[in-house]
Amino acid sequence: MKRYSWHVKIEDYAPLIGDEALERILHKAHRLRDLRVLHLSSTFYGGGVAEMLSSSTLLARSLGIKADWRLIQGSPDFFNVTKKIHNALQGAEINLTDLKKEVYEEIVVQNALRMDMTEYDVVIVHDPQPLPLIHHYRRTCPWIWRCHVDLSQPNPEVMDYLRGFIDEYNAVILSLPEYSQRIAPPQVFIMPAINPFSLKNGELDDAVIRDRLEHYGIPDDEPIVAQVSRFDRWKDPEGVIRAFLLAHEEVDATLVLLGNVASDDPEGQEVFESLLSHKEERIIILTAEDSALVNALQRRAAVVLQKSLREGFGLTVTEAMWKGAAVVGGNCGGIRHQIEDGVNGYLVSTEEETVQRIVQLIRDPAQRKQIGLRARDTVRQRFLMSRLLEQYLDLFSAFEATFSLNHQRVSALGLPVANKMSSDNKSGT
Amino acid sequence: MKRYSWHVKIEDYAPLIGDEALERILHKAHRLRDLRVLHLSSTFYGGGVAEMLSSSTLLARSLGIKADWRLIQGSPDFFNVTKKIHNALQGAEINLTDLKKEVYEEIVVQNALRMDMTEYDVVIVHDPQPLPLIHHYRRTCPWIWRCHVDLSQPNPEVMDYLRGFIDEYNAVILSLPEYSQRIAPPQVFIMPAINPFSLKNGELDDAVIRDRLEHYGIPDDEPIVAQVSRFDRWKDPEGVIRAFLLAHEEVDATLVLLGNVASDDPEGQEVFESLLSHKEERIIILTAEDSALVNALQRRAAVVLQKSLREGFGLTVTEAMWKGAAVVGGNCGGIRHQIEDGVNGYLVSTEEETVQRIVQLIRDPAQRKQIGLRARDTVRQRFLMSRLLEQYLDLFSAFEATFSLNHQRVSALGLPVANKMSSDNKSGT
Repeated sequence: MKRYSWHVKIEDYAPLIGDEALERILHKAHRLRDLRVLHLSSTFYGGGVAEMLSSSTLLARSLGIKADWRLIQGSPDFFNVTKKIHNALQGAEINLTDLKKEVYEEIVVQNALRMDMTEYDVVIVHDPQPLPLIHHYRRTCPWIWRCHVDLSQPNPEVMDYLRGFIDEYNAVILSLPEYSQRIAPPQVFIMPAINPFSLKNGELDDAVIRDRLEHYGIPDDEPIVAQVSRFDRWKDPEGVIRAFLLAHEEVDATLVLLGNVASDDPEGQEVFESLLSHKEERIIILTAEDSALVNALQRRAAVVLQKSLREGFGLTVTEAMWKGAAVVGGNCGGIRHQIEDGVNGYLVSTEEETVQRIVQLIRDPAQRKQIGLRARDTVRQRFLMSRLLEQYLDLFSAFEATFSLNHQRVSALGLPVANKMSSDNKSGT
Repeated sequence: MKRYSWHVKIEDYAPLIGDEALERILHKAHRLRDLRVLHLSSTFYGGGVAEMLSSSTLLARSLGIKADWRLIQGSPDFFNVTKKIHNALQGAEINLTDLKKEVYEEIVVQNALRMDMTEYDVVIVHDPQPLPLIHHYRRTCPWIWRCHVDLSQPNPEVMDYLRGFIDEYNAVILSLPEYSQRIAPPQVFIMPAINPFSLKNGELDDAVIRDRLEHYGIPDDEPIVAQVSRFDRWKDPEGVIRAFLLAHEEVDATLVLLGNVASDDPEGQEVFESLLSHKEERIIILTAEDSALVNALQRRAAVVLQKSLREGFGLTVTEAMWKGAAVVGGNCGGIRHQIEDGVNGYLVSTEEETVQRIVQLIRDPAQRKQIGLRARDTVRQRFLMSRLLEQYLDLFSAFEATFSLNHQRVSALGLPVANKMSSDNKSGT
């Protein structure tokens, strides 16, 4: 099977998904050849959204879809506000002042002034940061809002406020059916997926695994318990440490918390620093931008934790399952859709359960192995990037039938171009 | 006069540059109306390049020029390499291995795969990070490399390597004539400029100044000596601290080092941390993203230092001069073009000179004031964004005459469109 490469083609997936699926995807892509798709988000680094966009846009290109990815520019103030909005969408309180709305909306206007959108056939806006952009454009193609956050219990105040923007979209993509909202656009559900050939997920030689662990001073003389996750309170790193300390009274093990800090997450640094007081011989807390280290850690760990309290989806769970790890995940959000409790991993709701599963799995290597094999097969069947891409293709085709399409779109399908629309945007200059 | 606003129109400059200059700029812009200009860089934050692009693109939009600004995506590895290349362009040693070249060029290919460039009339690539992009496109419009670094003594090895990419461009913009290189494209010189209406440079009430200083615990009971600059060895923060300590033996004062860390500068955090050991009662070292604080500090400081060893241009000098500060700048690069020694500021080459000027200026408030008034007038005449924009307009007009222009460009001028070029890029997918 193909090993690590940044340049992945859909054909590389054939050994994983089968020739029939490959042919089906190629056929769907061919019909949409040269379709110009713009993905808009607010960061190139950190977190699952950036990773999926990085892989999925290149894979789409290999299928002849002109997928593009741009960022909006925001000030630190802007990201402070959008982080609060993000948290509120996951259920936190927010003091949604006029000043906060002004900062949010004004930065978006500035971005709208700089970007012309007439050259795309589909615009996909990711997460709340660039959401209000749509308000400043004369619509010349379908706009889709792709929300990656856990919307199971959104703060009603923030949802009411955002609904004004959301309702302008032609469709909304959510990760899970239970995230549906009372909103005007049709709601589509697409679960995230991983690139099995990336440096983070591809096969690794044992020597490389050892080298990475050594480089960061991670001992592997005892079983490793690892949580690889952004430093974010929703990932409950404090709870992980407490559970580990209790488990450690019964079994020998080393805990590794590995995370990075996304450039659109102003709270990350603070959470990271608050954890450092827990550092001791058997607790390693690392912030690193090293995909090979993540890969090595997930492959070497006896137990991979993802003890989230809210989890839009939980790509780190998928990544670990792909490597055959025994994963113990918080019983929330997307984790529940990946882990079938006791079959291909464990779901936990309390620290006590977490302690118990850590101890049990560390004591039983045979069970770990069996769970890991089933986990990998789950990912192969349901969570590879090829499946995500196919769902996007299906969605774009649906627009073809149900929306009155603009000229560029028709042109992309090889039909003649009618008069070209003005590229002015509503907000003017 | 207009105070702070993010939405600045060229008309706002009239009280500063005069009606005649305003009319001239309006006329030049009108001829190029709807021209689609793409600026490509590698960060939205930190450093002068991002600030200039943020202001100049919005100002250009107010003139009917469709200025756009995009980023390339790079991995941490990529930015480690490009920072080394940047340093080498300023004269540092580099071990330019094949692996470094591979990281640099491969990331650029990935970006090229995602971005189609046929919808622009001019592409302006900023600094070394996205430089090799040009290699992957069939040229459908003029491409300009805009290099902001101090090229007075570039490392020959890195210059030879980059020349292969540089020579593909239609023109190169450098900040100063003394940065000219033996390269194929015509070289144009445009000095950077500031937006006088930004939150960083606009008028500030005394109450706001006091509030900002208080908020960050900066005492103003004694004269303030400040250096506002990225944390970067080329800005010689260690030298600043040594000079201040010597000056402090003769006069009472507080030193403030204020900087931020650009997301494309992996060394910044390290330099910042290395300085923290110098913290004491009268030495304040801050990292903050707060434009109003920069503004307050430059307005309140008795002496503003910019003791750089290399300085592509030195926008922080311009900013401080605009506020009527008495600036003591390193006698290098662009600082020499802004400060006329003893007239509107002081140039220094050694720590001893720095000490002497600090002491002299702190002792003589009347001289500080006189120098500051002349400094502000220098900036008004030569370093406002309106001048920079006019030079860009002139450059674009020059292309009209000297290059055989592509169809989109002609279309932008209101002439009929001939056949449209393919949007495939050379590297394919």
